[in-house]
Amino acid sequence: MLKFQRKNFFSLINNSYTDDIIKIIDCEIRSKRLVNKFKISDVSSLDILRENSILFLDNEPKFSKLNFDNILLITSKVKIFNNKKLKNCILVNNLNYSWNTIINHIYSHEDDLKYSDDFIYNNNSYISKNAKIDPSSKIFNNCVIGKGVEIGKNCIIKNNVVIKNSLIKNNVVICDNTSIGTTGFGFDSRKRGSSFLSPQIGIVIIDDNVHIGSGCSIDRGKIDYTYIGKNSMLDNLVHIAHNVLIGENACIAGQTGISGSVVIGNNVTVGGQAGFAGHIKVGDNVIVAAKSGVTKNITNNSVVAGFPAIDIKEWKKSIIRQRKNGH
Amino acid sequence: MLKFQRKNFFSLINNSYTDDIIKIIDCEIRSKRLVNKFKISDVSSLDILRENSILFLDNEPKFSKLNFDNILLITSKVKIFNNKKLKNCILVNNLNYSWNTIINHIYSHEDDLKYSDDFIYNNNSYISKNAKIDPSSKIFNNCVIGKGVEIGKNCIIKNNVVIKNSLIKNNVVICDNTSIGTTGFGFDSRKRGSSFLSPQIGIVIIDDNVHIGSGCSIDRGKIDYTYIGKNSMLDNLVHIAHNVLIGENACIAGQTGISGSVVIGNNVTVGGQAGFAGHIKVGDNVIVAAKSGVTKNITNNSVVAGFPAIDIKEWKKSIIRQRKNGH
Amino acid sequence: MLKFQRKNFFSLINNSYTDDIIKIIDCEIRSKRLVNKFKISDVSSLDILRENSILFLDNEPKFSKLNFDNILLITSKVKIFNNKKLKNCILVNNLNYSWNTIINHIYSHEDDLKYSDDFIYNNNSYISKNAKIDPSSKIFNNCVIGKGVEIGKNCIIKNNVVIKNSLIKNNVVICDNTSIGTTGFGFDSRKRGSSFLSPQIGIVIIDDNVHIGSGCSIDRGKIDYTYIGKNSMLDNLVHIAHNVLIGENACIAGQTGISGSVVIGNNVTVGGQAGFAGHIKVGDNVIVAAKSGVTKNITNNSVVAGFPAIDIKEWKKSIIRQRKNGH
Repeated sequence: MLKFQRKNFFSLINNSYTDDIIKIIDCEIRSKRLVNKFKISDVSSLDILRENSILFLDNEPKFSKLNFDNILLITSKVKIFNNKKLKNCILVNNLNYSWNTIINHIYSHEDDLKYSDDFIYNNNSYISKNAKIDPSSKIFNNCVIGKGVEIGKNCIIKNNVVIKNSLIKNNVVICDNTSIGTTGFGFDSRKRGSSFLSPQIGIVIIDDNVHIGSGCSIDRGKIDYTYIGKNSMLDNLVHIAHNVLIGENACIAGQTGISGSVVIGNNVTVGGQAGFAGHIKVGDNVIVAAKSGVTKNITNNSVVAGFPAIDIKEWKKSIIRQRKNGH
Repeated sequence: MLKFQRKNFFSLINNSYTDDIIKIIDCEIRSKRLVNKFKISDVSSLDILRENSILFLDNEPKFSKLNFDNILLITSKVKIFNNKKLKNCILVNNLNYSWNTIINHIYSHEDDLKYSDDFIYNNNSYISKNAKIDPSSKIFNNCVIGKGVEIGKNCIIKNNVVIKNSLIKNNVVICDNTSIGTTGFGFDSRKRGSSFLSPQIGIVIIDDNVHIGSGCSIDRGKIDYTYIGKNSMLDNLVHIAHNVLIGENACIAGQTGISGSVVIGNNVTVGGQAGFAGHIKVGDNVIVAAKSGVTKNITNNSVVAGFPAIDIKEWKKSIIRQRKNGH
Repeated sequence: MLKFQRKNFFSLINNSYTDDIIKIIDCEIRSKRLVNKFKISDVSSLDILRENSILFLDNEPKFSKLNFDNILLITSKVKIFNNKKLKNCILVNNLNYSWNTIINHIYSHEDDLKYSDDFIYNNNSYISKNAKIDPSSKIFNNCVIGKGVEIGKNCIIKNNVVIKNSLIKNNVVICDNTSIGTTGFGFDSRKRGSSFLSPQIGIVIIDDNVHIGSGCSIDRGKIDYTYIGKNSMLDNLVHIAHNVLIGENACIAGQTGISGSVVIGNNVTVGGQAGFAGHIKVGDNVIVAAKSGVTKNITNNSVVAGFPAIDIKEWKKSIIRQRKNGH
């Protein structure tokens, strides 16, 4: 996994120690066990554990060998809380609510009125004073490049492109009216609306030699990142949701949508207007036909079609059967 | 129904009395009956009747108790014209043509070269001198906020957002590259092209605490408004057509499209890439699975899937049958 | 076919004679036959042959009567190369690779760091000094109009619109956040990524009285052009790929996507979220229902639905069968 400095994108607006966290979510706490005290300086995921951080966790984890001395674990699951190896642990009623409260206390982000950035108008675009753009790269007109963003060598960012909360490597082309690093669609299904939006404090990483078409939206990760692998190509009006990881050499045709936390392997080809349900895994060398709806994991080297997507030969047979049936 | 001042968005470019209207569409008129003379100051729909207005109507109405003293009704239906309660009525050959001619005579709108607005460049965005934005709200870079627009308290309007012909209430978040208040796709199917576009002189109303993703398009109403209810959430690249009414707490995933005049109840959840045919009604607490094509009214508490969308259990059974058939 | 001056959009960055071309792709050449020497000043397609040009061709052509004296043909097909009528012909290993190498040598285009344009900020938009806009047309705010672009009379270009590599005729309306003339999704499927993108040096032509909605993307042609015929109307979030030709009076609803090189006749109506596979032909007066996936040529006056799209009556019957089967 790649590392990034969260504070370059999301300012720490309050110094918080483990004790402070308890005060903030006081009414949510069912039980707690705090052996060590430390200053919270980041947020962890199971994929990327960070020193002096909070880890929000409700999934059954495999963390037996991990050192949790300087991680504060917050969970709503009694079974997790009861694992005595976890020295610093809070059992809460509602993990989403705790996430919202704690993250909004610690960080400012763009869906929060406290957020700010400081731009200069340079060559017809707004560039944050805290963005780093290699001078070999070209930015066309009416773009916005937010704080923390780094753009590597020989990139071309066309017109009216918005890039925030993102690291762009080398030789990347991003076409007109595309938005990168936007807010993921994360929320508690019971409490809707912008005020209850789950704060999204991850980023987007776009690796070398990627081409992104016009009118696309790529949401940033919730904690870690949304990733587009080397040499991958996205056509126009493609939607990539938060936490999606796409491997190398992907080719994704127009108007395809990939839901949150999907993991896609290397050398994958996707036709236009295809859709992927959240949290599924797609193997290497997979081909997904246009207009497919992929609802389950897909193994390496598969060719799938239809909705729900199945092996393309099976799909073709089922289409023939449907249509012959009447004759 | 909510009220709004049409003239804040669409200038009255000609003072027109009932007699003037007759001259403008003279060659379209088959018969007329004018008891009262008055100055036309607005346009009515059956949902919102306004004083001193014109009402264009071809649907069989239920207006027996309404006062039509100061409403000029225009219809192409003899049956409606023959209702003697209607004191001021014109029978025309073609209602669309009459709409286009009269509205283009009375109003200027953004699809008309006579339209104008007066902007100041303020904090990196173009804000109309006739827009009202609460100082607690934040507008990022490269936005355009048109005349008549009101933005309430604590809203966040991100980068490259265009908002015209709209009222935005409080705590609303609108993400990058989204367009609000755009022109509805209204036309006479026999006379196509920009010159014959049906003038759209309604607005968009976005209620409190709504979140709208990036790259979305929300068209304004034709006469009244397109409405997004409190606490509703739209993901990225969502298309909402003219006159759509969406209730509270809607959650609509990416790349979904809702056709003109659809009415959606409260607490509705819609998966990604779903589509809704025009003029249908969707009840409260409905769940529409991803990639569904909803073609008929949906009753409260339904869960539907497929295209045409049916009860999700039936849909799942039909998928299993299709695929088992060959084995 | 319409003519346009390629050099207005894509600068010739190297004077190249037939001999130079041989040096550039030296390692790709299997055989060559050069009778005439001339300076290369353009690129041909079989549809538009140009003087002193290169023609890249791997399809079996019907060019028996054409004069190839001043055309340099490049092919990877021995059968084509062996046609002795072709006086100037190079047999290469890989046509895509040769296209990329030669075009990137001759032309600069926007996906290349050598590309440049020269803008003035005029009435709140960036207009290239080498664009021609009729003074009767209106351009709203935050637009970018690139070099070579011509905009005819009485057009309305709304906010945050990007138009490059395009000719816009008269009475055209283009709505907010739309991108016209963007880069087609052309690549060699074995070598992916922005560095191997197939250079696209064609344009977009939008004919009289066309209406284009918000958030659309229209890619330019690879060699010739993408064309939208008179009086055609595109709704919001529509994707038109490279080389697509659309006839007069088309009406294309929201979120529809049309893949590369599709040819669509006159008076065609397409519902929302429909998709078209590449390189197919759709006749006149065709109606394509919403959410259809059109995978084959469609004859005049057809009404189709479903995926793969078939006659709508057959589709409706097959839906009824599927759903009755279980009862």
